[in-house]
Amino acid sequence: MGRRFAFKFVNLRFSVMDTSTKIAVIGGGSWATANIKMLTDNRNPKEIFWWMRDEENIEHIKKYKHNGSYLSSIEIKVPATNITSNLAEVVEKCDMILLNIPAAFLKEVLSTLNPDSFKGKKVISAIKGFIPEDNMIIGEFMNKSFQIPFEDIVVLSGPCHAEEVALEKLSYLTIASPDQALATEFANLVNTRYIKTNVSDDIYGTEYAAVLKNIYAVASGICHGVGYGDNFQSVLISNAIQEISRFVNAVHPIDRDIKESAYLGDLLVTAYSQFSRNRTFGNMIGKGYNVRSAQLEMNMVAEGYYASKSLHHINKQYKVNMPICRAVYAILYEKHSPSIEMKLLADQLS
Amino acid sequence: MGRRFAFKFVNLRFSVMDTSTKIAVIGGGSWATANIKMLTDNRNPKEIFWWMRDEENIEHIKKYKHNGSYLSSIEIKVPATNITSNLAEVVEKCDMILLNIPAAFLKEVLSTLNPDSFKGKKVISAIKGFIPEDNMIIGEFMNKSFQIPFEDIVVLSGPCHAEEVALEKLSYLTIASPDQALATEFANLVNTRYIKTNVSDDIYGTEYAAVLKNIYAVASGICHGVGYGDNFQSVLISNAIQEISRFVNAVHPIDRDIKESAYLGDLLVTAYSQFSRNRTFGNMIGKGYNVRSAQLEMNMVAEGYYASKSLHHINKQYKVNMPICRAVYAILYEKHSPSIEMKLLADQLS
Repeated sequence: MGRRFAFKFVNLRFSVMDTSTKIAVIGGGSWATANIKMLTDNRNPKEIFWWMRDEENIEHIKKYKHNGSYLSSIEIKVPATNITSNLAEVVEKCDMILLNIPAAFLKEVLSTLNPDSFKGKKVISAIKGFIPEDNMIIGEFMNKSFQIPFEDIVVLSGPCHAEEVALEKLSYLTIASPDQALATEFANLVNTRYIKTNVSDDIYGTEYAAVLKNIYAVASGICHGVGYGDNFQSVLISNAIQEISRFVNAVHPIDRDIKESAYLGDLLVTAYSQFSRNRTFGNMIGKGYNVRSAQLEMNMVAEGYYASKSLHHINKQYKVNMPICRAVYAILYEKHSPSIEMKLLADQLS
Repeated sequence: MGRRFAFKFVNLRFSVMDTSTKIAVIGGGSWATANIKMLTDNRNPKEIFWWMRDEENIEHIKKYKHNGSYLSSIEIKVPATNITSNLAEVVEKCDMILLNIPAAFLKEVLSTLNPDSFKGKKVISAIKGFIPEDNMIIGEFMNKSFQIPFEDIVVLSGPCHAEEVALEKLSYLTIASPDQALATEFANLVNTRYIKTNVSDDIYGTEYAAVLKNIYAVASGICHGVGYGDNFQSVLISNAIQEISRFVNAVHPIDRDIKESAYLGDLLVTAYSQFSRNRTFGNMIGKGYNVRSAQLEMNMVAEGYYASKSLHHINKQYKVNMPICRAVYAILYEKHSPSIEMKLLADQLS
């Protein structure tokens, strides 16, 4: 885990390749748009296809070379003919399928496809969420539903805000796969001047940590909304990384250092961000909005809201001590008072 | 480590004590003023004395019941007759001596005292810094120079901004001593509605972590000043806690969890604070000020500046791999360019 690859090696490796990889990005949101930018700024040969549902947005991008809805400052360099709303066609055409839509919509979007559609394909998940009814992480779901071997699955994680990719601020990505050669191959397609990549073999830990952090970002927002300050916040986050550590070690016990950027860094960049949707959502809950009003007001999906429910179910099996996640669930799904629940939580933290 | 003590137990314990503890707070800065507030808000019997050098400030406090220079919103409840500039007298009178002045001035302030002055006294250090020429943490220095047994030394640490104590925002303190009963006794003198305490036996780890964090706060400020964003910041801090872990394990290898609030929390509250003097100092360096100009402009001591130099010397002995501390030292003391040094550092992080 945690190896990084030099550019020289990359170029050497790819200069001798016969054909260039065809890669499809599935999704039109801000993180997908940031992925498109990395892939096109990276100089290794590849052909990029882009699927999104919204025809109007596709027309906008084809016409103006900018995504009208997300990170609109980014110049889109994908050829107009490669941007499409035809999922089956784009999946068939490509070798690598990068999934980047909210977890809650994945099942529906892929409903017209079957295991044959993915045969021989590599699947990269940039999604940070559980499949709601199944309470599964994306890697597990793709393996179970489409029989994709784990060796063909890659998890693309942070710590990385899409907004800073748009600004070309130096960022580190975590690229996890049981197949280290595949992870390295994908790393070599997104490395740029402003993107460094860490390759890891821990797909379970990387994906769970990426999903759980959204619950802690909600917790962080709730505490802020209720009136706790920076001192308490630092205790909350120290306890959060301990919860994550306990949980991933219960689910997938391997030798990992939870202080690495893939885990701790990803938690920090989300929980300390004033711009995180999850933190904003939590803040509104802490200030007294109910869940429905907060959602209506934000007009956005806070992944941590759904993750909280799924984790609650998943953890019935593992029974890991996770007081922060428990408190968030009680506030969001059992209508407990945020201020009372956080006061009770504070007594369990140290 | 990491135990916490309930209020009930506290009150029970103290209700049967014969005489009340006499405790001296040495120093008149904001953290000392916050300590005074905790000690007076805590209801267990004790007599509090307060030493500071500045006669004018003493007169101000006696007259107005507020510290005119720091955290002036706090109402000072120490009796006027207990506030003094006579150090020898106050030390002689008290059982517990709480040191809370910048590390750089400690030797000079204590120069009129000798080992006999401290005989039978308990010493609590709330200082976060090395003794400059000796390159020692405070516990070590008090042991070497005043023959205070380590069992009589307590380290008082965060994660805790003084400003939030003034606002009575819930905060957690770490109270470390080889003598757990002593640590608990002191914890019982500062516990309040808004202060929870964690008792630990790790004085070395707690004190080193508290000092090192200031260097990382400087690093954090430099990165911000140079133009790095939140994504990089999260990688920097993930690597920083790994450096701290490596260092304290080299200096004092015991079984500790570096993710606890005493270590990780203390780093987070400082490195992520926009108000940290160390971060502000680093930011100015990153923006191109030289050290002297930044110090003049700030008119304050950034402890991380001195800590960087001492750590550089101390680490000649331990040879721990600490690329972030190395980069900060190179920028502050070897006049390396912040932007080039941070670019080189970025290649060593993951």
